[in-house]
Amino acid sequence: MRYLISIEYRGTRFRGWEKQPGLRTVRGTLEAALSLAFGAPISLRASGRTDAGAHAEAQKAHFDCSGRIPPERLPQAANALLPDDVCIRDATRVADSFDARRDAKSKTYRYDFHFGRVPRPLTDEFAAWVRADESAFDPSRARAVLKKLVGTHDFSAFESTGRPVKSAVRTIYSASLSEKSGLYSIFVTGNGFLYNMVRIAAGTAIEAGLGRCDVAAVDSALATGDRRLCARTYPAKGLTLSDVSFDMPL
Amino acid sequence: MRYLISIEYRGTRFRGWEKQPGLRTVRGTLEAALSLAFGAPISLRASGRTDAGAHAEAQKAHFDCSGRIPPERLPQAANALLPDDVCIRDATRVADSFDARRDAKSKTYRYDFHFGRVPRPLTDEFAAWVRADESAFDPSRARAVLKKLVGTHDFSAFESTGRPVKSAVRTIYSASLSEKSGLYSIFVTGNGFLYNMVRIAAGTAIEAGLGRCDVAAVDSALATGDRRLCARTYPAKGLTLSDVSFDMPL
Repeated sequence: MRYLISIEYRGTRFRGWEKQPGLRTVRGTLEAALSLAFGAPISLRASGRTDAGAHAEAQKAHFDCSGRIPPERLPQAANALLPDDVCIRDATRVADSFDARRDAKSKTYRYDFHFGRVPRPLTDEFAAWVRADESAFDPSRARAVLKKLVGTHDFSAFESTGRPVKSAVRTIYSASLSEKSGLYSIFVTGNGFLYNMVRIAAGTAIEAGLGRCDVAAVDSALATGDRRLCARTYPAKGLTLSDVSFDMPL
Repeated sequence: MRYLISIEYRGTRFRGWEKQPGLRTVRGTLEAALSLAFGAPISLRASGRTDAGAHAEAQKAHFDCSGRIPPERLPQAANALLPDDVCIRDATRVADSFDARRDAKSKTYRYDFHFGRVPRPLTDEFAAWVRADESAFDPSRARAVLKKLVGTHDFSAFESTGRPVKSAVRTIYSASLSEKSGLYSIFVTGNGFLYNMVRIAAGTAIEAGLGRCDVAAVDSALATGDRRLCARTYPAKGLTLSDVSFDMPL
Protein backbone atom coordinates (compact mmCIF):
# COMPACT_ATOMS: atom_id res chain seq x y z
CA MET A 1 0.00 0.00 0.00
CA ARG A 2 1.15 3.54 -0.74
CA TYR A 3 0.73 6.25 1.87
CA LEU A 4 1.12 10.01 1.52
CA ILE A 5 2.11 11.91 4.65
CA SER A 6 2.24 15.60 5.58
CA ILE A 7 5.17 16.51 7.79
CA GLU A 8 5.93 19.53 9.98
CA TYR A 9 9.46 20.15 11.22
CA ARG A 10 11.66 22.73 12.88
CA GLY A 11 14.84 22.52 10.82
CA THR A 12 17.24 24.06 13.33
CA ARG A 13 18.71 20.85 14.64
CA PHE A 14 18.48 18.86 11.38
CA ARG A 15 21.05 18.75 8.60
CA GLY A 16 18.31 19.13 6.03
CA TRP A 17 15.82 16.64 4.56
CA GLU A 18 18.10 14.31 2.60
CA LYS A 19 19.79 11.38 4.33
CA GLN A 20 23.50 11.76 5.00
CA PRO A 21 25.62 9.13 6.74
CA GLY A 22 26.16 9.90 10.40
CA LEU A 23 24.14 13.14 10.32
CA ARG A 24 20.76 13.90 11.85
CA THR A 25 18.39 14.51 8.93
CA VAL A 26 14.60 14.78 8.67
CA ARG A 27 14.29 11.88 6.23
CA GLY A 28 16.61 9.66 8.26
CA THR A 29 14.75 10.42 11.49
CA LEU A 30 11.33 9.76 9.91
CA GLU A 31 12.39 6.54 8.19
CA ALA A 32 13.81 5.17 11.44
CA ALA A 33 10.53 5.84 13.28
CA LEU A 34 8.31 4.52 10.46
CA SER A 35 10.43 1.39 10.02
CA LEU A 36 10.08 0.74 13.73
CA ALA A 37 6.31 1.33 13.62
CA PHE A 38 5.76 -0.97 10.62
CA GLY A 39 8.37 -3.53 11.60
CA ALA A 40 9.93 -3.35 8.13
CA PRO A 41 12.24 -0.92 6.31
CA ILE A 42 10.42 2.18 5.01
CA SER A 43 11.86 4.48 2.36
CA LEU A 44 10.43 7.98 1.85
CA ARG A 45 10.17 10.00 -1.34
CA ALA A 46 9.50 13.68 -0.65
CA SER A 47 8.06 16.37 -2.89
CA GLY A 48 11.42 18.09 -2.56
CA ARG A 49 14.43 18.44 -0.34
CA THR A 50 14.81 21.26 2.13
CA ASP A 51 18.12 22.82 3.19
CA ALA A 52 19.86 22.33 6.51
CA GLY A 53 18.18 24.73 8.96
CA ALA A 54 15.07 25.30 6.83
CA HIS A 55 11.65 24.43 8.24
CA ALA A 56 8.44 22.89 6.90
CA GLU A 57 4.79 23.31 7.81
CA ALA A 58 3.60 20.78 5.26
CA GLN A 59 6.32 18.81 3.53
CA LYS A 60 4.79 15.86 1.64
CA ALA A 61 6.28 12.40 1.08
CA HIS A 62 5.03 8.99 0.02
CA PHE A 63 6.12 5.49 0.98
CA ASP A 64 5.07 1.90 0.51
CA CYS A 65 4.13 -0.23 3.47
CA SER A 66 2.27 -3.32 4.61
CA GLY A 67 -0.79 -1.35 5.68
CA ARG A 68 -0.46 -2.86 9.14
CA ILE A 69 -1.18 0.58 10.59
CA PRO A 70 -4.22 2.26 8.99
CA PRO A 71 -3.48 5.81 7.75
CA GLU A 72 -5.82 7.47 10.26
CA ARG A 73 -3.85 5.87 13.12
CA LEU A 74 -0.42 6.46 11.61
CA PRO A 75 0.28 10.03 12.88
CA GLN A 76 -0.16 9.10 16.55
CA ALA A 77 1.70 5.80 16.19
CA ALA A 78 4.68 7.40 14.47
CA ASN A 79 4.75 10.62 16.51
CA ALA A 80 5.17 8.59 19.68
CA LEU A 81 8.50 7.45 18.20
CA LEU A 82 9.60 10.86 16.88
CA PRO A 83 11.55 13.65 18.62
CA ASP A 84 9.75 16.94 19.35
CA ASP A 85 11.08 18.85 16.33
CA VAL A 86 9.37 16.72 13.68
CA CYS A 87 5.89 15.24 13.41
CA ILE A 88 3.53 13.63 10.95
CA ARG A 89 0.47 15.85 10.78
CA ASP A 90 -1.63 13.72 8.48
CA ALA A 91 -1.56 10.47 6.49
CA THR A 92 -3.73 9.22 3.67
CA ARG A 93 -3.75 6.25 1.29
CA VAL A 94 -2.93 7.03 -2.34
CA ALA A 95 -2.84 5.06 -5.61
CA ASP A 96 0.26 2.99 -6.29
CA SER A 97 0.91 5.23 -9.30
CA PHE A 98 1.07 8.38 -7.17
CA ASP A 99 4.46 10.01 -6.76
CA ALA A 100 4.96 12.81 -4.23
CA ARG A 101 7.73 14.38 -6.29
CA ARG A 102 6.50 13.95 -9.86
CA ASP A 103 2.87 14.79 -9.06
CA ALA A 104 3.62 17.89 -7.03
CA LYS A 105 1.95 20.66 -9.01
CA SER A 106 3.16 23.57 -6.96
CA LYS A 107 5.06 24.40 -3.80
CA THR A 108 4.80 27.46 -1.62
CA TYR A 109 7.74 28.71 0.40
CA ARG A 110 7.68 31.49 3.00
CA TYR A 111 10.72 33.57 3.84
CA ASP A 112 10.50 35.44 7.17
CA PHE A 113 12.73 38.31 8.25
CA HIS A 114 12.92 41.37 10.46
CA PHE A 115 15.00 44.54 10.55
CA GLY A 116 16.63 46.52 13.32
CA ARG A 117 19.78 46.86 15.32
CA VAL A 118 18.79 44.25 17.89
CA PRO A 119 17.95 40.54 17.56
CA ARG A 120 14.49 39.03 18.22
CA PRO A 121 14.92 36.01 20.51
CA LEU A 122 11.29 34.90 20.10
CA THR A 123 11.57 34.51 16.33
CA ASP A 124 15.32 33.95 16.09
CA GLU A 125 14.99 30.35 14.91
CA PHE A 126 12.47 31.14 12.19
CA ALA A 127 13.36 34.53 10.74
CA ALA A 128 16.46 36.14 9.25
CA TRP A 129 17.73 39.25 10.99
CA VAL A 130 18.49 41.94 8.42
CA ARG A 131 20.85 44.44 10.03
CA ALA A 132 19.32 47.63 8.69
CA ASP A 133 16.80 50.18 9.91
CA GLU A 134 13.24 49.21 9.05
CA SER A 135 12.71 52.82 7.89
CA ALA A 136 15.30 52.23 5.14
CA PHE A 137 13.16 49.45 3.64
CA ASP A 138 10.83 50.36 0.80
CA PRO A 139 8.34 47.46 0.42
CA SER A 140 7.24 48.72 -3.00
CA ARG A 141 10.76 48.15 -4.38
CA ALA A 142 10.84 44.63 -2.90
CA ARG A 143 7.43 43.94 -4.42
CA ALA A 144 8.65 45.19 -7.80
CA VAL A 145 11.41 42.56 -7.69
CA LEU A 146 8.97 39.82 -6.70
CA LYS A 147 6.64 40.80 -9.53
CA LYS A 148 9.46 40.39 -12.07
CA LEU A 149 10.03 36.80 -10.89
CA VAL A 150 6.46 35.73 -11.67
CA GLY A 151 6.18 33.80 -14.91
CA THR A 152 8.31 31.23 -16.73
CA HIS A 153 12.00 32.15 -16.69
CA ASP A 154 15.48 30.68 -16.75
CA PHE A 155 16.46 31.14 -13.10
CA SER A 156 20.17 30.29 -13.50
CA ALA A 157 21.12 33.56 -11.78
CA PHE A 158 19.08 32.47 -8.73
CA GLU A 159 20.84 29.16 -8.23
CA SER A 160 23.75 28.25 -6.00
CA THR A 161 26.37 26.05 -7.57
CA GLY A 162 26.63 22.50 -6.31
CA ARG A 163 23.47 20.85 -7.54
CA PRO A 164 23.54 20.98 -11.35
CA VAL A 165 20.18 20.40 -13.02
CA LYS A 166 19.36 19.86 -16.68
CA SER A 167 17.20 22.93 -17.04
CA ALA A 168 16.97 26.06 -14.91
CA VAL A 169 13.59 27.01 -16.35
CA ARG A 170 10.87 27.23 -13.72
CA THR A 171 7.45 28.84 -13.47
CA ILE A 172 6.61 31.11 -10.53
CA TYR A 173 2.85 31.48 -10.08
CA SER A 174 2.88 34.16 -7.41
CA ALA A 175 5.27 36.10 -5.18
CA SER A 176 4.16 38.49 -2.47
CA LEU A 177 5.30 40.36 0.64
CA SER A 178 3.36 40.95 3.86
CA GLU A 179 4.17 42.37 7.27
CA LYS A 180 2.83 42.09 10.81
CA SER A 181 4.35 43.63 13.95
CA GLY A 182 7.70 44.13 12.25
CA LEU A 183 7.91 40.52 11.04
CA TYR A 184 7.99 40.40 7.23
CA SER A 185 7.07 37.36 5.12
CA ILE A 186 7.76 36.74 1.44
CA PHE A 187 5.58 34.01 -0.10
CA VAL A 188 6.66 32.37 -3.36
CA THR A 189 4.60 29.72 -5.17
CA GLY A 190 5.99 27.89 -8.17
CA ASN A 191 6.11 24.59 -10.02
CA GLY A 192 9.64 23.92 -8.81
CA PHE A 193 12.70 25.59 -7.33
CA LEU A 194 16.45 25.43 -7.95
CA TYR A 195 18.99 24.96 -5.18
CA ASN A 196 18.76 27.99 -2.82
CA MET A 197 16.46 29.77 -5.28
CA VAL A 198 14.00 31.10 -2.69
CA ARG A 199 16.77 32.28 -0.37
CA ILE A 200 18.46 34.16 -3.23
CA ALA A 201 15.17 35.57 -4.53
CA ALA A 202 14.09 36.74 -1.06
CA GLY A 203 17.53 38.24 -0.47
CA THR A 204 17.40 40.09 -3.78
CA ALA A 205 13.95 41.50 -2.99
CA ILE A 206 15.12 42.61 0.46
CA GLU A 207 18.34 44.19 -0.84
CA ALA A 208 16.39 46.03 -3.54
CA GLY A 209 13.94 47.23 -0.87
CA LEU A 210 16.90 48.63 1.04
CA GLY A 211 18.20 50.37 -2.09
CA ARG A 212 21.30 48.20 -2.14
CA CYS A 213 20.60 46.95 -5.63
CA ASP A 214 18.58 48.07 -8.62
CA VAL A 215 15.16 46.63 -9.29
CA ALA A 216 16.15 46.57 -12.96
CA ALA A 217 19.11 44.30 -12.16
CA VAL A 218 16.58 41.47 -11.90
CA ASP A 219 15.77 41.82 -15.60
CA SER A 220 19.46 41.48 -16.41
CA ALA A 221 19.82 38.55 -14.02
CA LEU A 222 16.94 36.70 -15.69
CA ALA A 223 18.28 37.54 -19.17
CA THR A 224 21.93 36.70 -18.60
CA GLY A 225 21.86 34.08 -15.80
CA ASP A 226 24.62 36.01 -14.03
CA ARG A 227 24.55 34.97 -10.37
CA ARG A 228 26.49 38.11 -9.36
CA LEU A 229 23.53 40.32 -10.24
CA CYS A 230 21.50 38.80 -7.38
CA ALA A 231 21.91 39.08 -3.62
CA ARG A 232 23.89 36.61 -1.57
CA THR A 233 22.07 33.48 -0.40
CA TYR A 234 20.06 34.56 2.66
CA PRO A 235 20.10 32.36 5.82
CA ALA A 236 18.24 29.04 5.79
CA LYS A 237 16.56 29.70 9.12
CA GLY A 238 14.16 32.21 7.52
CA LEU A 239 12.87 29.61 5.05
CA THR A 240 9.76 27.48 5.59
CA LEU A 241 8.20 25.08 3.09
CA SER A 242 4.62 26.16 3.61
CA ASP A 243 2.62 23.92 1.29
CA VAL A 244 2.75 21.41 -1.55
CA SER A 245 -0.25 20.83 -3.78
CA PHE A 246 -0.92 18.03 -6.23
CA ASP A 247 -2.54 17.66 -9.62
CA MET A 248 -4.96 14.99 -8.64
CA PRO A 249 -7.61 14.94 -5.94
CA LEU A 250 -6.29 12.65 -3.21
CA MET B 1 21.43 57.71 36.40
CA ARG B 2 18.34 55.53 36.15
CA TYR B 3 17.66 53.58 32.96
CA LEU B 4 14.53 51.73 31.90
CA ILE B 5 15.00 48.82 29.52
CA SER B 6 12.62 46.70 27.45
CA ILE B 7 13.63 43.04 27.26
CA GLU B 8 12.62 40.20 24.94
CA TYR B 9 13.37 36.61 25.89
CA ARG B 10 12.61 33.02 24.97
CA GLY B 11 12.02 31.42 28.36
CA THR B 12 12.62 27.80 27.40
CA ARG B 13 16.16 27.51 28.68
CA PHE B 14 15.77 29.93 31.62
CA ARG B 15 14.59 29.08 35.12
CA GLY B 16 12.38 32.15 35.14
CA TRP B 17 13.14 35.82 35.72
CA GLU B 18 14.17 35.86 39.38
CA LYS B 19 17.75 35.12 40.38
CA GLN B 20 18.40 31.74 41.96
CA PRO B 21 21.81 30.52 43.07
CA GLY B 22 23.43 28.24 40.50
CA LEU B 23 20.52 28.42 38.04
CA ARG B 24 20.33 30.15 34.68
CA THR B 25 17.79 32.95 35.07
CA VAL B 26 16.87 35.94 32.91
CA ARG B 27 17.70 38.49 35.60
CA GLY B 28 20.99 36.81 36.47
CA THR B 29 22.03 36.63 32.81
CA LEU B 30 21.14 40.28 32.17
CA GLU B 31 22.83 41.58 35.33
CA ALA B 32 26.04 39.74 34.45
CA ALA B 33 26.12 41.30 30.97
CA LEU B 34 25.19 44.81 32.17
CA SER B 35 27.73 44.69 35.00
CA LEU B 36 30.40 43.77 32.47
CA ALA B 37 29.28 46.53 30.09
CA PHE B 38 29.28 49.23 32.80
CA GLY B 39 32.27 47.88 34.69
CA ALA B 40 30.30 47.99 37.96
CA PRO B 41 27.64 45.82 39.61
CA ILE B 42 24.15 46.41 38.17
CA SER B 43 20.95 45.33 39.92
CA LEU B 44 17.67 45.10 37.99
CA ARG B 45 14.15 45.72 39.22
CA ALA B 46 11.53 44.30 36.83
CA SER B 47 7.86 45.16 36.46
CA GLY B 48 7.15 41.61 37.50
CA ARG B 49 8.63 38.14 37.58
CA THR B 50 7.90 35.57 34.92
CA ASP B 51 7.75 31.81 35.48
CA ALA B 52 10.36 29.28 34.40
CA GLY B 53 9.65 28.54 30.73
CA ALA B 54 7.49 31.63 30.15
CA HIS B 55 8.52 34.17 27.51
CA ALA B 56 8.51 37.95 27.18
CA GLU B 57 8.18 40.29 24.24
CA ALA B 58 8.51 43.43 26.34
CA GLN B 59 9.46 42.86 29.96
CA LYS B 60 10.46 46.15 31.57
CA ALA B 61 13.10 46.75 34.26
CA HIS B 62 15.00 49.70 35.67
CA PHE B 63 18.52 50.00 37.08
CA ASP B 64 20.94 52.64 38.27
CA CYS B 65 24.24 53.14 36.52
CA SER B 66 27.11 55.55 35.91
CA GLY B 67 25.72 56.63 32.56
CA ARG B 68 29.03 55.65 30.95
CA ILE B 69 27.03 54.08 28.11
CA PRO B 70 24.30 56.39 26.75
CA PRO B 71 20.85 54.73 26.59
CA GLU B 72 20.68 54.81 22.79
CA ARG B 73 23.91 52.80 22.61
CA LEU B 74 23.06 50.41 25.43
CA PRO B 75 21.08 47.74 23.49
CA GLN B 76 23.90 47.00 21.07
CA ALA B 77 26.59 47.16 23.75
CA ALA B 78 24.73 44.77 26.05
CA ASN B 79 23.40 42.44 23.36
CA ALA B 80 26.93 41.72 22.22
CA LEU B 81 27.45 40.19 25.68
CA LEU B 82 24.11 38.32 25.85
CA PRO B 83 23.19 34.82 24.64
CA ASP B 84 20.76 34.47 21.72
CA ASP B 85 17.66 33.80 23.83
CA VAL B 86 17.52 37.20 25.54
CA CYS B 87 18.05 40.75 24.28
CA ILE B 88 17.54 44.36 25.28
CA ARG B 89 15.24 45.87 22.67
CA ASP B 90 15.28 49.43 23.92
CA ALA B 91 16.70 51.63 26.68
CA THR B 92 15.72 55.07 27.89
CA ARG B 93 16.67 57.39 30.74
CA VAL B 94 14.03 57.88 33.45
CA ALA B 95 13.69 60.04 36.55
CA ASP B 96 15.39 58.77 39.71
CA SER B 97 11.94 58.48 41.29
CA PHE B 98 10.70 56.08 38.60
CA ASP B 99 10.12 52.47 39.64
CA ALA B 100 9.45 49.78 37.01
CA ARG B 101 7.40 47.74 39.46
CA ARG B 102 5.45 50.37 41.36
CA ASP B 103 4.74 52.56 38.34
CA ALA B 104 3.56 49.72 36.09
CA LYS B 105 -0.04 50.64 35.35
CA SER B 106 -0.97 47.52 33.45
CA LYS B 107 0.50 44.35 32.04
CA THR B 108 -0.68 42.30 29.10
CA TYR B 109 -0.06 38.57 28.92
CA ARG B 110 -0.75 36.34 25.94
CA TYR B 111 -1.47 32.63 26.28
CA ASP B 112 -1.02 30.61 23.07
CA PHE B 113 -2.34 27.09 22.46
CA HIS B 114 -3.45 24.67 19.78
CA PHE B 115 -5.61 21.56 19.63
CA GLY B 116 -5.31 18.25 17.86
CA ARG B 117 -3.96 14.77 18.18
CA VAL B 118 -0.53 15.68 16.87
CA PRO B 119 2.09 18.16 18.11
CA ARG B 120 3.18 21.30 16.25
CA PRO B 121 7.00 21.37 16.13
CA LEU B 122 7.12 24.93 14.75
CA THR B 123 5.25 26.42 17.70
CA ASP B 124 6.10 23.79 20.31
CA GLU B 125 8.23 26.13 22.41
CA PHE B 126 5.63 28.90 22.48
CA ALA B 127 2.21 27.26 22.64
CA ALA B 128 0.50 24.70 24.84
CA TRP B 129 -0.76 21.58 23.11
CA VAL B 130 -4.31 20.83 24.25
CA ARG B 131 -5.00 17.17 23.49
CA ALA B 132 -8.54 17.49 22.22
CA ASP B 133 -10.21 17.87 18.84
CA GLU B 134 -10.47 21.48 17.74
CA SER B 135 -14.08 20.78 16.76
CA ALA B 136 -14.88 20.11 20.43
CA PHE B 137 -13.85 23.66 21.36
CA ASP B 138 -16.58 26.28 21.58
CA PRO B 139 -14.86 29.71 21.58
CA SER B 140 -18.03 31.43 22.80
CA ARG B 141 -17.89 29.45 26.06
CA ALA B 142 -14.21 30.34 26.51
CA ARG B 143 -15.05 33.99 25.84
CA ALA B 144 -17.86 33.85 28.41
CA VAL B 145 -15.32 32.78 31.03
CA LEU B 146 -12.89 35.53 30.03
CA LYS B 147 -15.67 38.12 30.24
CA LYS B 148 -16.45 37.10 33.81
CA LEU B 149 -12.83 37.75 34.81
CA VAL B 150 -12.94 41.39 33.69
CA GLY B 151 -13.38 43.80 36.58
CA THR B 152 -12.10 43.99 40.14
CA HIS B 153 -12.26 40.64 41.93
CA ASP B 154 -10.62 38.56 44.61
CA PHE B 155 -8.70 36.08 42.46
CA SER B 156 -7.72 33.67 45.26
CA ALA B 157 -9.17 30.76 43.29
CA PHE B 158 -6.81 31.61 40.41
CA GLU B 159 -3.62 31.49 42.45
CA SER B 160 -1.16 28.68 42.99
CA THR B 161 0.08 28.23 46.51
CA GLY B 162 3.67 29.08 47.24
CA ARG B 163 3.80 32.83 46.90
CA PRO B 164 1.48 34.29 49.56
CA VAL B 165 0.45 37.89 48.98
CA LYS B 166 -1.41 40.28 51.25
CA SER B 167 -4.37 40.77 48.99
CA ALA B 168 -5.65 38.68 46.09
CA VAL B 169 -7.75 41.55 44.72
CA ARG B 170 -6.76 42.53 41.19
CA THR B 171 -8.39 44.42 38.35
CA ILE B 172 -8.59 42.89 34.90
CA TYR B 173 -9.15 45.52 32.20
CA SER B 174 -9.69 43.21 29.26
CA ALA B 175 -9.57 39.54 28.31
CA SER B 176 -10.04 38.23 24.78
CA LEU B 177 -9.53 35.22 22.54
CA SER B 178 -8.38 35.18 18.92
CA GLU B 179 -7.37 32.49 16.43
CA LYS B 180 -5.25 32.24 13.29
CA SER B 181 -4.39 29.05 11.36
CA GLY B 182 -5.34 26.87 14.32
CA LEU B 183 -3.15 28.81 16.76
CA TYR B 184 -5.28 30.35 19.52
CA SER B 185 -4.25 33.30 21.69
CA ILE B 186 -5.82 34.54 24.91
CA PHE B 187 -4.88 38.13 25.81
CA VAL B 188 -5.34 39.34 29.39
CA THR B 189 -4.60 42.91 30.53
CA GLY B 190 -4.72 43.85 34.20
CA ASN B 191 -3.17 45.98 36.91
CA GLY B 192 -1.41 42.97 38.41
CA PHE B 193 -1.43 39.20 38.51
CA LEU B 194 -1.13 36.55 41.20
CA TYR B 195 1.25 33.60 40.96
CA ASN B 196 0.19 31.46 37.95
CA MET B 197 -3.01 33.50 37.58
CA VAL B 198 -2.89 33.80 33.77
CA ARG B 199 -2.06 30.12 33.31
CA ILE B 200 -4.99 29.11 35.53
CA ALA B 201 -7.37 31.62 33.92
CA ALA B 202 -6.40 30.53 30.40
CA GLY B 203 -6.75 26.88 31.38
CA THR B 204 -10.20 27.51 32.86
CA ALA B 205 -11.35 29.31 29.70
CA ILE B 206 -10.02 26.47 27.51
CA GLU B 207 -11.59 23.73 29.67
CA ALA B 208 -14.91 25.56 29.66
CA GLY B 209 -14.65 25.88 25.87
CA LEU B 210 -14.21 22.12 25.70
CA GLY B 211 -17.25 21.59 27.92
CA ARG B 212 -15.10 20.10 30.68
CA CYS B 213 -16.27 22.66 33.21
CA ASP B 214 -19.18 25.00 33.64
CA VAL B 215 -18.94 28.65 32.69
CA ALA B 216 -20.92 29.38 35.86
CA ALA B 217 -18.22 27.70 37.97
CA VAL B 218 -16.18 30.86 37.46
CA ASP B 219 -18.75 32.87 39.42
CA SER B 220 -18.44 30.43 42.31
CA ALA B 221 -14.65 30.48 42.05
CA LEU B 222 -14.57 34.27 42.26
CA ALA B 223 -17.10 34.26 45.12
CA THR B 224 -15.55 31.49 47.23
CA GLY B 225 -11.84 31.59 46.33
CA ASP B 226 -11.92 27.79 45.94
CA ARG B 227 -8.96 26.82 43.75
CA ARG B 228 -10.59 23.46 42.94
CA LEU B 229 -13.30 25.17 40.88
CA CYS B 230 -10.69 26.29 38.32
CA ALA B 231 -8.63 24.31 35.83
CA ARG B 232 -5.18 23.00 36.57
CA THR B 233 -2.28 25.36 35.95
CA TYR B 234 -1.61 25.24 32.20
CA PRO B 235 2.00 24.88 30.93
CA ALA B 236 4.35 27.87 31.21
CA LYS B 237 5.56 27.54 27.63
CA GLY B 238 2.27 28.99 26.30
CA LEU B 239 2.70 32.18 28.33
CA THR B 240 4.27 35.39 27.00
CA LEU B 241 4.48 38.74 28.81
CA SER B 242 3.40 40.88 25.90
CA ASP B 243 3.53 44.42 27.26
CA VAL B 244 3.88 46.59 30.34
CA SER B 245 2.61 50.16 30.35
CA PHE B 246 3.29 52.96 32.79
CA ASP B 247 1.36 55.82 34.33
CA MET B 248 3.72 58.54 33.33
CA PRO B 249 5.00 59.58 29.93
CA LEU B 250 8.63 58.44 29.78
